[in-house]
Amino acid sequence: MNNLDKLIQHFEKFPGVGARQAKRFAFHILTQAEDESKDLSELIANLKGSVVECASCHRFFPTAGVETMCSICNSQNRNHHKLLVVTQDSDIQAIERAGVYDGLYFVFGGTVPLLNSKENNKLRGSALKATVEERLKEGLVEVTLGFAVNPDGENTARFVESIIGEMLKERDIKTTYLGRGLSTGSELEYADPETIKNAFQNRSTHE
Amino acid sequence: MNNLDKLIQHFEKFPGVGARQAKRFAFHILTQAEDESKDLSELIANLKGSVVECASCHRFFPTAGVETMCSICNSQNRNHHKLLVVTQDSDIQAIERAGVYDGLYFVFGGTVPLLNSKENNKLRGSALKATVEERLKEGLVEVTLGFAVNPDGENTARFVESIIGEMLKERDIKTTYLGRGLSTGSELEYADPETIKNAFQNRSTHE
Amino acid sequence: MNNLDKLIQHFEKFPGVGARQAKRFAFHILTQAEDESKDLSELIANLKGSVVECASCHRFFPTAGVETMCSICNSQNRNHHKLLVVTQDSDIQAIERAGVYDGLYFVFGGTVPLLNSKENNKLRGSALKATVEERLKEGLVEVTLGFAVNPDGENTARFVESIIGEMLKERDIKTTYLGRGLSTGSELEYADPETIKNAFQNRSTHE
Amino acid sequence: MNNLDKLIQHFEKFPGVGARQAKRFAFHILTQAEDESKDLSELIANLKGSVVECASCHRFFPTAGVETMCSICNSQNRNHHKLLVVTQDSDIQAIERAGVYDGLYFVFGGTVPLLNSKENNKLRGSALKATVEERLKEGLVEVTLGFAVNPDGENTARFVESIIGEMLKERDIKTTYLGRGLSTGSELEYADPETIKNAFQNRSTHE
Repeated sequence: MNNLDKLIQHFEKFPGVGARQAKRFAFHILTQAEDESKDLSELIANLKGSVVECASCHRFFPTAGVETMCSICNSQNRNHHKLLVVTQDSDIQAIERAGVYDGLYFVFGGTVPLLNSKENNKLRGSALKATVEERLKEGLVEVTLGFAVNPDGENTARFVESIIGEMLKERDIKTTYLGRGLSTGSELEYADPETIKNAFQNRSTHE
Repeated sequence: MNNLDKLIQHFEKFPGVGARQAKRFAFHILTQAEDESKDLSELIANLKGSVVECASCHRFFPTAGVETMCSICNSQNRNHHKLLVVTQDSDIQAIERAGVYDGLYFVFGGTVPLLNSKENNKLRGSALKATVEERLKEGLVEVTLGFAVNPDGENTARFVESIIGEMLKERDIKTTYLGRGLSTGSELEYADPETIKNAFQNRSTHE
Repeated sequence: MNNLDKLIQHFEKFPGVGARQAKRFAFHILTQAEDESKDLSELIANLKGSVVECASCHRFFPTAGVETMCSICNSQNRNHHKLLVVTQDSDIQAIERAGVYDGLYFVFGGTVPLLNSKENNKLRGSALKATVEERLKEGLVEVTLGFAVNPDGENTARFVESIIGEMLKERDIKTTYLGRGLSTGSELEYADPETIKNAFQNRSTHE
Repeated sequence: MNNLDKLIQHFEKFPGVGARQAKRFAFHILTQAEDESKDLSELIANLKGSVVECASCHRFFPTAGVETMCSICNSQNRNHHKLLVVTQDSDIQAIERAGVYDGLYFVFGGTVPLLNSKENNKLRGSALKATVEERLKEGLVEVTLGFAVNPDGENTARFVESIIGEMLKERDIKTTYLGRGLSTGSELEYADPETIKNAFQNRSTHE
């Protein structure tokens, strides 16, 4: 296979990219200025050197090479007694944007699909166990499981509970789940029965 | 204007129907069997005689002409101490499908748009007041406002509170709102800040 | 079944209308003014009396009851030596909008599906034969088959040829087909092979 | 700006890629195996060395470094008396897939937008002139302009004619345009007036 086709093949593995777009990416690189592609090439080659996985929450963060923990895990302004387990780095960005959570995070690295039990070696089961043990020493009071509201997300929650549930129960640490109900834009007429059920069970005295 | 065009004009006023589809509807009637259109014509002419607005909840229900109240309002199996105010008939269908609410309903008849204060004469403000007064005599304990999670829905809730809020407060009757949070299918990464905020505030110890 | 459900069932048979929209239509009629639904009901009941199928081209046209032929078939400004066979009334409207055809029409009444040979009694095979015979006496010079560019459209063209092909060939009357190639908005990159093939075969010395 | 953000910025310039997908691309690279990103980085760095712009048609083709002309321009099986001018490389792939053209190509490199007269330095006006002059010596008989059927495509055709039109006219070389009409899947009812007009003007005696 020639180098152009090899590059296209690489791009086809990019998330959400099909054969035609992969080809367009290759042409984009062919037609851009020489120093642009040189720059891109070097950024890719050196990315892992300039971005580090946080030793505590396991999200990626840019670093000059000295720190091993990210700015959130290092911050004295965060509540170190709360831990939120999420699927991936981008969930953290969405939550930080909302500005309502002041605790620490743990990036689990993926979901445990309900129907595909293929070993997912990106999942951080034992790292999670270690982190929770560490946090327990420092007065952990609540672990929140923040997974998607779908079968895979719920299966992942079950899986995480099987890892750290016992440990938390023994010490009477609260495990919580993100609230369910009507999300922004919901209209009753189009809401699914499960969501309506949650909306009733979680109804409150303020809007 | 000829009759064909007049009919098309009628169909253009049907909800969600554009000029082209209205034309198709007219052709559909032109090409269907004679007795089909006769049947349709008669059903339309007599609809209001065979469907009645419930004197209590104001939803439409089919009747032979004797009853003035719908099967829900008449039922001894429903909890008559709970009242749920919704926008329209179709909301009731969605909620009944979910099978989690056993109280009574009140169809408010529409929303109060935030930006368009045009008098909406389908709204049933005074009827709601009368119904609540009636229910109060029979031991009402909770009124739930079930409007859409959008600016118009929230404005409608404000409007309804201005009508019955005082009355309920005086008697210590609880006003509740449907719970907000992640709805079925939600993924944190794509959730809006408001929904994430609600998901955190309403987090619970069970999924 | 009650009258409301019967009406909803009628609306569900309207082209492109699903269960939910059918229900909305019924509510639309329930909530509109009394004289509006009376008007609609009467228009539907009397539609067939005020719209007539043209004896020549078989399209529907509004009439006070005297004419048997539509304004196009009656017009002295149209070229009566050309005949264009189309699937349905709405095709005529699209062609008239384009303003490039000055001949007469024949509405075939539907397509002959390639895979479903169910008898379609709306198709006007023998009427077409009769019309062509009539036109032949008056100097017909060209019959154009204007069906969709898809398997059903092409199958319909074959079927029409089996009815009138011989007759036209004997008298040396030209049968033509609408030109194929790139349509407005087409980009080569996304064009299908068949369209590209047609675009090459039909290339011309002007754009 | 840190390297992660710099890389994301590069990806945002990729065709059809938004901020969120660019971020996903970066995470994709972060989490893939070390040798995968090394391979990708090198392919990008060396792409221009292993892919060459054909000296004749200007499309890109992979090469070990010896050839200066692509396999189509070099082929004795192609008709060297025909030239097809297209916008971009991907147009050639679509046409070759259709298998109906046996002549040579010229990649113009872009379109001349109707409304944005910004100098587009990727356009190969003078190279086209040189190529046509070269072909004229070898018995060119037809130049086909194969641009999109939209305002920009038509404006580009005008621009190309202003460059090579005179030259071709003097020698009586035919300039042709891809045929227009109904494309695969077209239904008359939904066709735009321009397409219907072309379909009538280009009607033929075979389907």
